[in-house]
Amino acid sequence: MTYCVGLFLDQGLVMLADTRTNAGLDNISCFAKLQQFHRPGERMIATMTAGNLAVSQAVINLIQEGLPHPETGVQETIYSVPTMFGAAALVSQAVRHVHQIHGKAMQEQDVPFDVSILLGGQVANRTMRLFQVYAAGNFIEATGDTPFLQVGEHKYGKPILDRAVSSATSLTEGVKLALISMDSTLRSNLSVGMPLDLLVYRKDSIDGVETHRIEKGDAYFGMIRERWSAALAEAHRKIPAPSWLSGPYPADPAD
Amino acid sequence: MTYCVGLFLDQGLVMLADTRTNAGLDNISCFAKLQQFHRPGERMIATMTAGNLAVSQAVINLIQEGLPHPETGVQETIYSVPTMFGAAALVSQAVRHVHQIHGKAMQEQDVPFDVSILLGGQVANRTMRLFQVYAAGNFIEATGDTPFLQVGEHKYGKPILDRAVSSATSLTEGVKLALISMDSTLRSNLSVGMPLDLLVYRKDSIDGVETHRIEKGDAYFGMIRERWSAALAEAHRKIPAPSWLSGPYPADPAD
Repeated sequence: MTYCVGLFLDQGLVMLADTRTNAGLDNISCFAKLQQFHRPGERMIATMTAGNLAVSQAVINLIQEGLPHPETGVQETIYSVPTMFGAAALVSQAVRHVHQIHGKAMQEQDVPFDVSILLGGQVANRTMRLFQVYAAGNFIEATGDTPFLQVGEHKYGKPILDRAVSSATSLTEGVKLALISMDSTLRSNLSVGMPLDLLVYRKDSIDGVETHRIEKGDAYFGMIRERWSAALAEAHRKIPAPSWLSGPYPADPAD
Repeated sequence: MTYCVGLFLDQGLVMLADTRTNAGLDNISCFAKLQQFHRPGERMIATMTAGNLAVSQAVINLIQEGLPHPETGVQETIYSVPTMFGAAALVSQAVRHVHQIHGKAMQEQDVPFDVSILLGGQVANRTMRLFQVYAAGNFIEATGDTPFLQVGEHKYGKPILDRAVSSATSLTEGVKLALISMDSTLRSNLSVGMPLDLLVYRKDSIDGVETHRIEKGDAYFGMIRERWSAALAEAHRKIPAPSWLSGPYPADPAD
């Protein structure tokens, strides 16, 4: 399994992915799911992939090697598409191309053709955008109303994003919230695992991008886990008990 | 869909269920999923059901009408079983009985035989227990290490329980945490809905049980939703930004 989350904020993008890939519980590997396609001063595009690893890798290869544009016939790559919409269309085309090559054989072996891709970034002088491309090649886009997209094991990490993320959230808070959302997922699903890959992109900067690999044992991530659990414990204790509860029940030993 | 959560605490049991039943998005009804079988001074047993409504209702009917004990042949009901283990065995038997009657026809129509039941309570002078019975009739039990069980749409509401519930949690805190867990689920899955049914049972009291229906617009539930969101927002703002983040990025407008 996988968990990837992308935040589409007024200030820019936060993209966070785990790196665990598994084929059964006893065959676990570490594969980067976050890929960056950066041409300084010209474009910063990043993808995060979930689903079948062979399919994701084929798609990522194809968008770098290029595919002929369905109308013009001109070969296009992730480095040549003129806009983020063009990039989404290219990824979509790549997904369908991979399906054409491998879909039938996979189906015959009962292997689902399962892939979801988050695609975020900006081409110079164009709009910053964040897309999610599905296995059928269709895609949706994050907007101000729904400023985050998730792929993979998304449910455990969604409540904190639902409650706390708006498009006005700063990049710094966005990084913290993405890490908290990931932590909730790591605790609940063994097939999502460290290290984590993080990308932070400042809107309209093209080169204002930084990536970090957060390794197991990372001091900051450990601190955020502890502080967050402690803050939650304090928060629910501070909420008064319901007046309709008959009780009285003995107090919490930790109080 | 459904969300039911049972907390198995040193002080007693907290059981919380939503009431939404849906057959498609345009056919929504309200059905109680929490059932109580109380004989004052003698036993307090409660069930919460998720899955196919016809199957759940058939099981709940059967455990009240009674089934012959597989070994002794004596008719047993939820009011006559001598222990909670006996109650779990009875529910298991009822699930299998319903499968025998309806399983084949359901399969022919591609309707999954889908049911999960939480069963908690105590028979006088016996141990308080909390079980989860699966669609195959097999069952597991909550223990001190894993002091909560969930059925239905369980993922959204699990992180808060993972972080905050231990068997030492008081009944009062347990009620708050179950409501917070339910709120996270309500926000993320439309097919889980108000009103909510809550049961609180004080261990070894048999009659120390209270139930509440929390209606849409309930002032306490509204307050807990607001306070919780506010507390989370404050909590993540208080966590320092990672020192490895290059930035500096503009502060959060809400800071």
